[in-house]
Amino acid sequence: MRVYRYEENPLITPSDIKPYHDGFEVIGAFNAGVAEYNGEIILALRVAERPISDDPNIVKAPVYSPETNKVEIIDIDRNDSRYDFSDPRVIEISGTGQFAYLTSISYVRLARSKDGRNFTIDDGAFVYPSNEHETFGIEDPRITQIGDTYYIYFSAVSPVGVGESMVSTKDFNTYEHHGMIFSPENKDVLIFPEKINGKYYALHRPVPKATGSPEMWIAESDNLLYWGNHRHLIGLREGMWDDGRIGGGAVPIKTEKGWLELYHGASKDNRYCMGAVLLDLDDPSKVIARSETPLVVPEADYEVEGFFSKVVFSCGAIVEGDTIKMYYGVADTSMACAELSLSEVLDSLK
Amino acid sequence: MRVYRYEENPLITPSDIKPYHDGFEVIGAFNAGVAEYNGEIILALRVAERPISDDPNIVKAPVYSPETNKVEIIDIDRNDSRYDFSDPRVIEISGTGQFAYLTSISYVRLARSKDGRNFTIDDGAFVYPSNEHETFGIEDPRITQIGDTYYIYFSAVSPVGVGESMVSTKDFNTYEHHGMIFSPENKDVLIFPEKINGKYYALHRPVPKATGSPEMWIAESDNLLYWGNHRHLIGLREGMWDDGRIGGGAVPIKTEKGWLELYHGASKDNRYCMGAVLLDLDDPSKVIARSETPLVVPEADYEVEGFFSKVVFSCGAIVEGDTIKMYYGVADTSMACAELSLSEVLDSLK
Repeated sequence: MRVYRYEENPLITPSDIKPYHDGFEVIGAFNAGVAEYNGEIILALRVAERPISDDPNIVKAPVYSPETNKVEIIDIDRNDSRYDFSDPRVIEISGTGQFAYLTSISYVRLARSKDGRNFTIDDGAFVYPSNEHETFGIEDPRITQIGDTYYIYFSAVSPVGVGESMVSTKDFNTYEHHGMIFSPENKDVLIFPEKINGKYYALHRPVPKATGSPEMWIAESDNLLYWGNHRHLIGLREGMWDDGRIGGGAVPIKTEKGWLELYHGASKDNRYCMGAVLLDLDDPSKVIARSETPLVVPEADYEVEGFFSKVVFSCGAIVEGDTIKMYYGVADTSMACAELSLSEVLDSLK
Repeated sequence: MRVYRYEENPLITPSDIKPYHDGFEVIGAFNAGVAEYNGEIILALRVAERPISDDPNIVKAPVYSPETNKVEIIDIDRNDSRYDFSDPRVIEISGTGQFAYLTSISYVRLARSKDGRNFTIDDGAFVYPSNEHETFGIEDPRITQIGDTYYIYFSAVSPVGVGESMVSTKDFNTYEHHGMIFSPENKDVLIFPEKINGKYYALHRPVPKATGSPEMWIAESDNLLYWGNHRHLIGLREGMWDDGRIGGGAVPIKTEKGWLELYHGASKDNRYCMGAVLLDLDDPSKVIARSETPLVVPEADYEVEGFFSKVVFSCGAIVEGDTIKMYYGVADTSMACAELSLSEVLDSLK
């Protein structure tokens, strides 16, 4: 598989972004949803900001308050044995596998480009936490365009769980909030860009507790707001590149051979790669083929080194002729782009 | 709170039920959904059957196969350290908190009564596992009647997770399967019996993994099949009777003061009680009041002793005037009924 990484990579890094919050630093500008609007490519960046701490013994946890519409900061003593600080992204409750707080707060901020390589960052937030389900932030947006409406959906993170919420916009200036469309625990939702036999479809990625794994499901809808007929789609594959967790990546791409979904798979040791699954054009709950080996693995410096290393994680792509321009977050830190040949990807799916 | 337990309790026990599967024993007839049909009270029992094992070193796990439409039995060595057998209901994967198999398989079987105390058990199953999401069985049905249609929904258990699926019937003889309406991990769904301001509503109980607890949420729908606008409704209360897990019980009861939901709460040491929450008539996402102490606690012998002890767990009730006839499973084994005064319950909710 030929993978052409842009010479300009990483295209956007945290240092390109002025913090939205006073006293915070930007630690990530990554996992962006992608749209084409008004002749420009728009990246809906997940921007993660962290309170600057001058005391190495204090870990600061930012929490949005819907009552005050402000972010409050909770100080936690790094020596407090009730908490486990080994994962830099979260403050875990020791021994439970659950997190109590995140170490940063994410929101959606826009970057715009004429050429797809050089981006200008908007001032301020576009979609910012606004309710009790978003108090720990909103993460990993995807964008599906249907007609002149862009549906932007993202993980809504709060102490009651991680679900998927949605807004819509026609102008990337104002938006309407549609609430939570998939209840916890769920993320990595991808809404298909058109109805199929009269129904909307979405991929989603529940994380069940009592039994089951972080795997990909498919659901259907009449109106994009209410979802049902949930069916398990693809699972983890023991000993392969995607035996740890999987989830949808880019919005499904309609091809002659089927719906092409670029999805991420992590191994048990948390190397995140991108691969593909091909779904039946008329019934996307039918799997035609799936990548035996990943299409893109973390190899470049900016993919291997960062806040959370060895991650390539796409939330959106643009297709022009035979070229897939896959935008992707790298190492939970920055944004990059790589081009793949659509026909080569389809040929790789036997 | 006066609680009048029927003298005939337990009303239905495993010994009343002829096994549906050859070589199995019935270990539970409990957690029944309740409906009134044709002048009779119908209990949609969860019947749990276990393969009879003549070797105490072998634990048998029944698994339904959609391909053969039969139950296959997997033998597991009780000395196999990969598994933990300490919870009699499940075969856990040691150290993970997840189960690999259940020790019994459940399906829905009907019991019918003219007087609500003496029941006749139907031959055979009514709703039986039928697809890949139900291979470990279907559990804890509830029934909402809307017009002349009875919607019966239940936990669908399989290796890919525990979700909530639904069928509908008009005659308790044949039914239509509507697939999974809430994706894993979710159970304890309760659909309100009428539209409220143009929308259907349901309570549901996700179990998130990364953060959050088994708590009650509310969702809305246009058609009962597709659900959205998920909102967190009520949570656990530290140090109280419901600080371990909570979930909806009976179908919400419309009263002058609001929608009355009889829900179950378990303490951290797994004592399951029944309490109540009162929701706004026009907007059931608004909580008016909630039981400070439980309405019914496991006290009778048949509630305290059984397959899983100290459990009262209602999935349905019938209201006649000021009397709530609350049917409930006891100790994960049998069915009982207790009468409560509706006005006393409402008065207890300040």
